[in-house]
Amino acid sequence: MKFKQIRQAAYEANMELPELGLVLFTFGNASAVDRGHGVFAIKPSGVPYADLSPDNMVIVDFDNRIVEGDMRPSSDTKTHAVLYKNWPNIGGIVHTHSTYATAWAQTQMDIPIFGTTHADHLTVDIPCAPVMSDEMIRGDYEYETGFQILNAFADRGLSPEEVEMVLVSNHAPFSWGKTVKKAVYNSAVMEEVARMAYLTLQINPNAPRLKEALIRKHWERKHGEGAYYGQ
Amino acid sequence: MKFKQIRQAAYEANMELPELGLVLFTFGNASAVDRGHGVFAIKPSGVPYADLSPDNMVIVDFDNRIVEGDMRPSSDTKTHAVLYKNWPNIGGIVHTHSTYATAWAQTQMDIPIFGTTHADHLTVDIPCAPVMSDEMIRGDYEYETGFQILNAFADRGLSPEEVEMVLVSNHAPFSWGKTVKKAVYNSAVMEEVARMAYLTLQINPNAPRLKEALIRKHWERKHGEGAYYGQ
Amino acid sequence: MKFKQIRQAAYEANMELPELGLVLFTFGNASAVDRGHGVFAIKPSGVPYADLSPDNMVIVDFDNRIVEGDMRPSSDTKTHAVLYKNWPNIGGIVHTHSTYATAWAQTQMDIPIFGTTHADHLTVDIPCAPVMSDEMIRGDYEYETGFQILNAFADRGLSPEEVEMVLVSNHAPFSWGKTVKKAVYNSAVMEEVARMAYLTLQINPNAPRLKEALIRKHWERKHGEGAYYGQ
Amino acid sequence: MKFKQIRQAAYEANMELPELGLVLFTFGNASAVDRGHGVFAIKPSGVPYADLSPDNMVIVDFDNRIVEGDMRPSSDTKTHAVLYKNWPNIGGIVHTHSTYATAWAQTQMDIPIFGTTHADHLTVDIPCAPVMSDEMIRGDYEYETGFQILNAFADRGLSPEEVEMVLVSNHAPFSWGKTVKKAVYNSAVMEEVARMAYLTLQINPNAPRLKEALIRKHWERKHGEGAYYGQ
Repeated sequence: MKFKQIRQAAYEANMELPELGLVLFTFGNASAVDRGHGVFAIKPSGVPYADLSPDNMVIVDFDNRIVEGDMRPSSDTKTHAVLYKNWPNIGGIVHTHSTYATAWAQTQMDIPIFGTTHADHLTVDIPCAPVMSDEMIRGDYEYETGFQILNAFADRGLSPEEVEMVLVSNHAPFSWGKTVKKAVYNSAVMEEVARMAYLTLQINPNAPRLKEALIRKHWERKHGEGAYYGQ
Repeated sequence: MKFKQIRQAAYEANMELPELGLVLFTFGNASAVDRGHGVFAIKPSGVPYADLSPDNMVIVDFDNRIVEGDMRPSSDTKTHAVLYKNWPNIGGIVHTHSTYATAWAQTQMDIPIFGTTHADHLTVDIPCAPVMSDEMIRGDYEYETGFQILNAFADRGLSPEEVEMVLVSNHAPFSWGKTVKKAVYNSAVMEEVARMAYLTLQINPNAPRLKEALIRKHWERKHGEGAYYGQ
Repeated sequence: MKFKQIRQAAYEANMELPELGLVLFTFGNASAVDRGHGVFAIKPSGVPYADLSPDNMVIVDFDNRIVEGDMRPSSDTKTHAVLYKNWPNIGGIVHTHSTYATAWAQTQMDIPIFGTTHADHLTVDIPCAPVMSDEMIRGDYEYETGFQILNAFADRGLSPEEVEMVLVSNHAPFSWGKTVKKAVYNSAVMEEVARMAYLTLQINPNAPRLKEALIRKHWERKHGEGAYYGQ
Repeated sequence: MKFKQIRQAAYEANMELPELGLVLFTFGNASAVDRGHGVFAIKPSGVPYADLSPDNMVIVDFDNRIVEGDMRPSSDTKTHAVLYKNWPNIGGIVHTHSTYATAWAQTQMDIPIFGTTHADHLTVDIPCAPVMSDEMIRGDYEYETGFQILNAFADRGLSPEEVEMVLVSNHAPFSWGKTVKKAVYNSAVMEEVARMAYLTLQINPNAPRLKEALIRKHWERKHGEGAYYGQ
């Protein structure tokens, strides 16, 4: 069996989702890409996490063709494929229906940047991609979901290397990163930031956005040239 | 001892309720039907989940007569009997007082369809059956609760094969399915959808309902003729 | 060592409090009474639950005198003593700072009866005893807390056999029952009812109280002459 | 290896943070001071809790110089150093991004004293230090965060021996105590008080502050001359 590395990485990432409390039943999927071969490993559709193994991850190429695997891949596979094909620097993708991030997606609103927990990870509000047109929905839906995300980033001039998460209106969150492990991390961070922002607005509906100097400072200390967070 | 299969199925379903965080103490019950014999197995009343076994499930017919068992069946048994008798295609029923679904039932409001998590399971708001008349309450209460649910579905033209869950006003949720395992699944899904809808309204009291094209799309990909979710 | 039975009962009840998620650190205490000897066993003050044993429960009489034990009893002991002395039919008392019940106590409001989960346990709003006068606070505070509860019940004509729980304004909940095991059960029920009532009001600030016929029905089926809940 | 005692104390305190549910991933740090040597032991930056040991705690002096250790200390080390240097009676410091306390920090509001759970620990609202000036942010940020806290205490005339916790606007909570174990305890208490205050305001936006007589009474019984809480 080939593609051992991405099978293992995708398997481990999928298994982290229930452990982190990000999924109920089978409501989520993670994938890891092998850029050299132009394929990614993704969770099989509708299979409980307890029944997963590196071997039953499905290998798919960027045009959604199954390269290796007996099971049907996640129903969201086309969305993953579109993102891998168009964003050459991402190594892994995670999709969940985590509670607070999904509630924000259902409001069709961005998650405002209220504090340093948010600014440690991105300098802008977490974007909520606008609702798809009926035409796109009736067309190739999961394929179009990929473009719904790409278009939202293009419209706002966002870079997927700097903003590694998005809400899809009325649906749920997606996250990504250089590795699928980082994408899982981003998924958990987004859920916690979504929860804190919800609580902030409940306590003070007029809570101010984080001011620019603090946004820059927290981003720079973790990601800037002179970054001094971590080892 | 007869009815081994439904005893085992009802036992396992009841045991899943505390594991999924859907019940406190003994606030819930699950039953599984044997259509061939016209009976169902249901939790004994007021017995802690830790003391349950397949053997102490009570076997009851559709007119609420105990067929096998030394213990008194769940106080909600008549409601189960009415539903089994009138809805010939359901195989299992679950009743809980799960926190968020019960809070919605206490508001006497339907749970609006806000997102795809909801649409993956049903295409309408989760119906809240209106409060029972005083006459029905003073009559055969649990029996009438069954009709309260049947009437709500008849009034709205809903099918129990398509909508597998309901809130009973001021009381709590009921769910069902082709199997009792599916009914448990629906119970957990309803609780999560109830929680997300609650959060959605807290963040944005004017959050829009999911648009029709998305409702149809998500339902079709899981349940339509060309369904492509799962294996 | 004497009073083995109440030592054991109080110990087990105290240990249930963290298991049920009702206490943080040492924020709660349970006691069990021995009516024959006119004494009760109560948690020692400020001792972590992990360090408790039946042997270090403190035995106190109804006038707050230590009968047996080397440790100082709970700082709330006088409140327990007053309740045991004046309410001859209660067998155990529990005090916690459980999150939702305490939040309601901080609002100085009763918890409205919104549903059958509530009505299964009591037929009235969960009473919130009004704030103590400054004079009583500066006097024998914990002793007066007992009278604050007694007075609230007398003023409203409530019976401690029918209503086994109370909120103390700006402080936290107390519960009791025929046994301390039942008092622990009531403490967990009150927390869940408090949480559901909070959520109900968030979703619908105009949610109606449960109507009288339903209140009576649910109470009667569990506690009336023809009760048919349980074995 | 020297400083065994503070290494062990800091290690144990850091390990308690995820156990108490106060941190996600590496979002928090604890330190313990050795006043005799003028140094403290603190968590290394960005290292998962599972990889911590007493040996990899970093030893730093009050001017932020690494005295012992191969790893980079927490990015918040300068804040700890400033507090140790200026507040000679504190023995340990904890910083987390715990959910409810952080949401309050994001509102830039003090946490009002609503009940005895709060008054058992401090007699004033939990202070929220105002937002730092842009100049301070662009300067030596973590060093200035220490002064942001010191200034808030000086401006309000608060004593760090009586008030052992603070919110930093748009950022997150800090707590301290005579020992780092007490600082961890205070961090968990602050999170629970923050959660109760949030719920209180949701149920009753006009909830009254705790009255002065109750504040004094609860503080005195735990901390006053005639304290009678604990052993």
